[in-house]
Amino acid sequence: MSGIVVRDFERTPLADIAALAEFGVATIHEAQDRKGLLAAHMRPIYAGAQAAGNAVTVSVPPGDNWMIHVAIEQCRDGDLLVVAPTSPCTDGYFGELLACSLKAHGVRGLVIEAGCRDVNALREMRFPVWSCAISAQGTVKESLGDVNVPLVCGGQIVNPGDVVVADDDGIVIVKRDDIRAVTASSREREDKEAAMRARLVKGELTVDILEMRARLTAKGLRLQPGADD
Amino acid sequence: MSGIVVRDFERTPLADIAALAEFGVATIHEAQDRKGLLAAHMRPIYAGAQAAGNAVTVSVPPGDNWMIHVAIEQCRDGDLLVVAPTSPCTDGYFGELLACSLKAHGVRGLVIEAGCRDVNALREMRFPVWSCAISAQGTVKESLGDVNVPLVCGGQIVNPGDVVVADDDGIVIVKRDDIRAVTASSREREDKEAAMRARLVKGELTVDILEMRARLTAKGLRLQPGADD
Amino acid sequence: MSGIVVRDFERTPLADIAALAEFGVATIHEAQDRKGLLAAHMRPIYAGAQAAGNAVTVSVPPGDNWMIHVAIEQCRDGDLLVVAPTSPCTDGYFGELLACSLKAHGVRGLVIEAGCRDVNALREMRFPVWSCAISAQGTVKESLGDVNVPLVCGGQIVNPGDVVVADDDGIVIVKRDDIRAVTASSREREDKEAAMRARLVKGELTVDILEMRARLTAKGLRLQPGADD
Amino acid sequence: MSGIVVRDFERTPLADIAALAEFGVATIHEAQDRKGLLAAHMRPIYAGAQAAGNAVTVSVPPGDNWMIHVAIEQCRDGDLLVVAPTSPCTDGYFGELLACSLKAHGVRGLVIEAGCRDVNALREMRFPVWSCAISAQGTVKESLGDVNVPLVCGGQIVNPGDVVVADDDGIVIVKRDDIRAVTASSREREDKEAAMRARLVKGELTVDILEMRARLTAKGLRLQPGADD
Amino acid sequence: MSGIVVRDFERTPLADIAALAEFGVATIHEAQDRKGLLAAHMRPIYAGAQAAGNAVTVSVPPGDNWMIHVAIEQCRDGDLLVVAPTSPCTDGYFGELLACSLKAHGVRGLVIEAGCRDVNALREMRFPVWSCAISAQGTVKESLGDVNVPLVCGGQIVNPGDVVVADDDGIVIVKRDDIRAVTASSREREDKEAAMRARLVKGELTVDILEMRARLTAKGLRLQPGADD
Amino acid sequence: MSGIVVRDFERTPLADIAALAEFGVATIHEAQDRKGLLAAHMRPIYAGAQAAGNAVTVSVPPGDNWMIHVAIEQCRDGDLLVVAPTSPCTDGYFGELLACSLKAHGVRGLVIEAGCRDVNALREMRFPVWSCAISAQGTVKESLGDVNVPLVCGGQIVNPGDVVVADDDGIVIVKRDDIRAVTASSREREDKEAAMRARLVKGELTVDILEMRARLTAKGLRLQPGADD
Repeated sequence: MSGIVVRDFERTPLADIAALAEFGVATIHEAQDRKGLLAAHMRPIYAGAQAAGNAVTVSVPPGDNWMIHVAIEQCRDGDLLVVAPTSPCTDGYFGELLACSLKAHGVRGLVIEAGCRDVNALREMRFPVWSCAISAQGTVKESLGDVNVPLVCGGQIVNPGDVVVADDDGIVIVKRDDIRAVTASSREREDKEAAMRARLVKGELTVDILEMRARLTAKGLRLQPGADD
Repeated sequence: MSGIVVRDFERTPLADIAALAEFGVATIHEAQDRKGLLAAHMRPIYAGAQAAGNAVTVSVPPGDNWMIHVAIEQCRDGDLLVVAPTSPCTDGYFGELLACSLKAHGVRGLVIEAGCRDVNALREMRFPVWSCAISAQGTVKESLGDVNVPLVCGGQIVNPGDVVVADDDGIVIVKRDDIRAVTASSREREDKEAAMRARLVKGELTVDILEMRARLTAKGLRLQPGADD
Repeated sequence: MSGIVVRDFERTPLADIAALAEFGVATIHEAQDRKGLLAAHMRPIYAGAQAAGNAVTVSVPPGDNWMIHVAIEQCRDGDLLVVAPTSPCTDGYFGELLACSLKAHGVRGLVIEAGCRDVNALREMRFPVWSCAISAQGTVKESLGDVNVPLVCGGQIVNPGDVVVADDDGIVIVKRDDIRAVTASSREREDKEAAMRARLVKGELTVDILEMRARLTAKGLRLQPGADD
Repeated sequence: MSGIVVRDFERTPLADIAALAEFGVATIHEAQDRKGLLAAHMRPIYAGAQAAGNAVTVSVPPGDNWMIHVAIEQCRDGDLLVVAPTSPCTDGYFGELLACSLKAHGVRGLVIEAGCRDVNALREMRFPVWSCAISAQGTVKESLGDVNVPLVCGGQIVNPGDVVVADDDGIVIVKRDDIRAVTASSREREDKEAAMRARLVKGELTVDILEMRARLTAKGLRLQPGADD
Repeated sequence: MSGIVVRDFERTPLADIAALAEFGVATIHEAQDRKGLLAAHMRPIYAGAQAAGNAVTVSVPPGDNWMIHVAIEQCRDGDLLVVAPTSPCTDGYFGELLACSLKAHGVRGLVIEAGCRDVNALREMRFPVWSCAISAQGTVKESLGDVNVPLVCGGQIVNPGDVVVADDDGIVIVKRDDIRAVTASSREREDKEAAMRARLVKGELTVDILEMRARLTAKGLRLQPGADD
Repeated sequence: MSGIVVRDFERTPLADIAALAEFGVATIHEAQDRKGLLAAHMRPIYAGAQAAGNAVTVSVPPGDNWMIHVAIEQCRDGDLLVVAPTSPCTDGYFGELLACSLKAHGVRGLVIEAGCRDVNALREMRFPVWSCAISAQGTVKESLGDVNVPLVCGGQIVNPGDVVVADDDGIVIVKRDDIRAVTASSREREDKEAAMRARLVKGELTVDILEMRARLTAKGLRLQPGADD
């Protein structure tokens, strides 16, 4: 039965999250073997949105945002709210007032597989939200859900205390235990990419830099003669 | 049979519309008991679009924008065009030239459950459009439709003379007879929200301000012991 | 069997493309009898994106961007990459590094019926991309596809060397042999539109300018009496 | 505010409905000038489903089927329930038990722009349902809606007492006042089609029977020379 | 990194699964508090499909079914394969030959959030499949995935050894530890429903049987006077 | 400009088509290197539909079926109509009468990326149709399109005279010049599959029959120890 509020779960130190959040979602996602990315229908409500934090999860009934109100009390500085309805819903669960409240408790942003509203106000106050819809359609406060239970959002499992990083490319979930390894691997990856970028802008080709030619030929690549042959 | 142009219908005084349009779509929608909101796939073509006016309705065949041309003659200062195809269509029914014409007749904007084009030009001239698609695909002028008949746009009934308010959150329809009550109720709502916002930014919780705790417990909310218990 | 790289195909002179690209996609599409427009789900990753070039086509397997790497070598100044997967896929095939490489070879932009990532970086470097998704989900380099074979992208046939013009309204394909005729016809159309715009802003109606009234009546249009009759 | 149950509205005599229901939805829709058809995403839960009746309308909150229970009491022999949620929802609002109850009160079927469940049992008891989803996801009984108010279902306005006809091709709404005219016109249409069918099976062409050739040529049809010229 | 095959996990005794599978998905889903239902876009490939078994999970790359081949070796009598791609894909991962192989190892069916093919042959051999697409589009065998790791399919977390029950209404996941309680609760529910069905077919109303009238009035239900008042 | 009817194009001998059509769409698609398959949203209107023929192509405006009437005259025994709208449309372009006419001219079926109606009658007369929608929404006869020009249907290029094979799995296009090679390759494939099926039903594994183990290990597959180790 719904109605559970888990109050105690382990969070990741904010310094660790800050170190990870220097990297973009695409880099982090690659750095952890292409795992943990939320589905592409989850989009930021404004260009340039960026956030990272400890997941506080909220499972909500369709068209009912009561549990978001309940969840705020469980939030601390550096948290990031992750909300998913128990059946698909595009209603506007979240708006400016809830954003004011979350901000007052140090929450970094919201990821919601449902609708969001007051997007103009949210953009102005720079409270970042990733949602699957924008809708002024309000919700009721009649039925319970759960706070800080494992849930599925955007096709990914999210546990309370998982690290969430989000930007214009999407949202990625990093497990608490993996964060330092993923941060290190992201850094390595970015260093390598910087080196490659320097060569690419000079006109070198990835097929040469990454030495792909032999493998391509082995797979059967056939270049037809060109005008310059 | 199609081909009817209703020329006579009652409009709402523009002063009343201006008073209502001080409020956002989300506020107005709540203020009239969550009614009249168009579906979430209707989106503005640029961020920050805003408009309000008396609905002039146009029912159009798929891929045919002839009736929009016919409808302009029926438009007056303060009107807002609401267009819906008789079967789903994403073609670009509307572009810069029609916008110039509508603007010359005082029309405030366009809501269309189909496609729109010339969006760059429309953004520059600040002619707001809410549509379900952006498409350069042109239309023909071969078949009739109807002007100023009741129609369904974005899942809502729109009658000619209904008041339409639209912003970044979506589009809401207010019945002519309700406008003063809804304006008053929106103002009340916004005053209440201002008061609540002041308390929320200080860190107070909605569960306390709105006195939800008893009702939550009655419904069966179970808080698990936290680390600080 | 996949794995073909066609190296030799005819391109359109860049001066001709530049002349055509003075016009918007909507104008060009009308000027060539409403043909060649890609489907409306193909959208630019930032507002104001604009590009035109000779198509280099790339057919890719789902979730595998290897052939984009292969294709770069075939690109010249003024080309524009057109990529389509052999089955529907929203993965992020393309990001900042590939954009750096394309830019270094003079490529003007990318049209891809799949996902794109690093959109923030692409926006900053003004490398225009039209895609059907934004996704950080990476791809592998395991299977071959084809370069410079005819393919279908956004519901349109694209041949290597076709001219691609893209802006906020979408993407249109112009056949090499048609480019001068379409450019001339676009110019004519724009001149006519400028003349009409001048009349519309003064309040004239298209039903008068385009002399539609007789044809409307013949089709059965019935104007109901208005308040001013 | 929601919570209204309208008990009194005019119904169409069942004999009139029976006469209309001899014709298919496609025929009726044409016979009333292509109006009143619900959107194509509304599909029967089994092939061969057929029903016609007086509309009893139910507006329901997302994920809450309480008002369907309330509505049954307002149903009489020959009614057909039309249900639409106030925001999009695919939950299974309806199953075998409610069907037993509706059947006991003479209700002919259900049209619901949401989900349905127990489809195996419904197929066996031949209780026809048209829905936009099949889902075992249950609903709650917490919030009110309205019974017998005008609503929008599948993009069409449905009033209580409107006549609903549904089959494998979809669902069409006929206004009470139009039913005899539409029935007559459907009969005429079907007679004409029977005559045409007899000619078509012999190999005659519609372009000849309907005398389209002159109009096609006038529009600019160009037949290229064939092998047999 | 992908490529893990977990060989050891706990299964539920088949007798327990058989006892549970006497009930339909809708009943089981209600009996466990409306949890564990896969999304409504997952549909059986033929009407009347039914299956229940222990989940063997397979995470596959887009367009690559290699891991399904790998997974078969891990299957035992009474298992049911659950497959999800790491990014959305409608390719036909599965057909008649794989079904023959699965059947030979006692596998009861397949749930796949991707495409299926040879549906005619599968229908004839009565091998039940629930998928989100039917597509003849083949797949490659180039990249690894994982077998028997927790994954998300149709929006639900599925662990190896979870019990899967599927029928025409959809697919529900029951945790191994809950199966006896859910079976008991399903039986109770079905007994209650049988009793209620008997009353409903006689014309009694759920608002009376479930004693809803007082609560409806308290919520604000307003019955308008009827013709018979 | 639209309005072209190409009357002369080469067809494939019907005996060759009959030989190819002994194989299913999935087999043929594999046999020609996974090319030519239409998108998965194209579905048969009844289970067990099957057809093969020479493509007669028809490009139609949205909501206008006039050109289908025009095309019939160009059809011969063994043809199969392929219809695509110039912009997306789900209207019911095709019903029983047109099917009678096509049948009288020996046409084997219809593939249409739009809507179809009278599906009950079509099922009874066994006229197979593959469409992307079922809709009673009628069309007009006002604008021209083209007959027997190359077009894109379901994401594939279809030329007049291409061979179309369709069944429950979808629709595949085979080029006239390839038909004998593809038929031979399909036969080979089916023979190989028959041999493999015989081994699979006995419980052998594809990883053994296809000797995949070494390649799996090389790619990094890691089997965790099982209970029986």
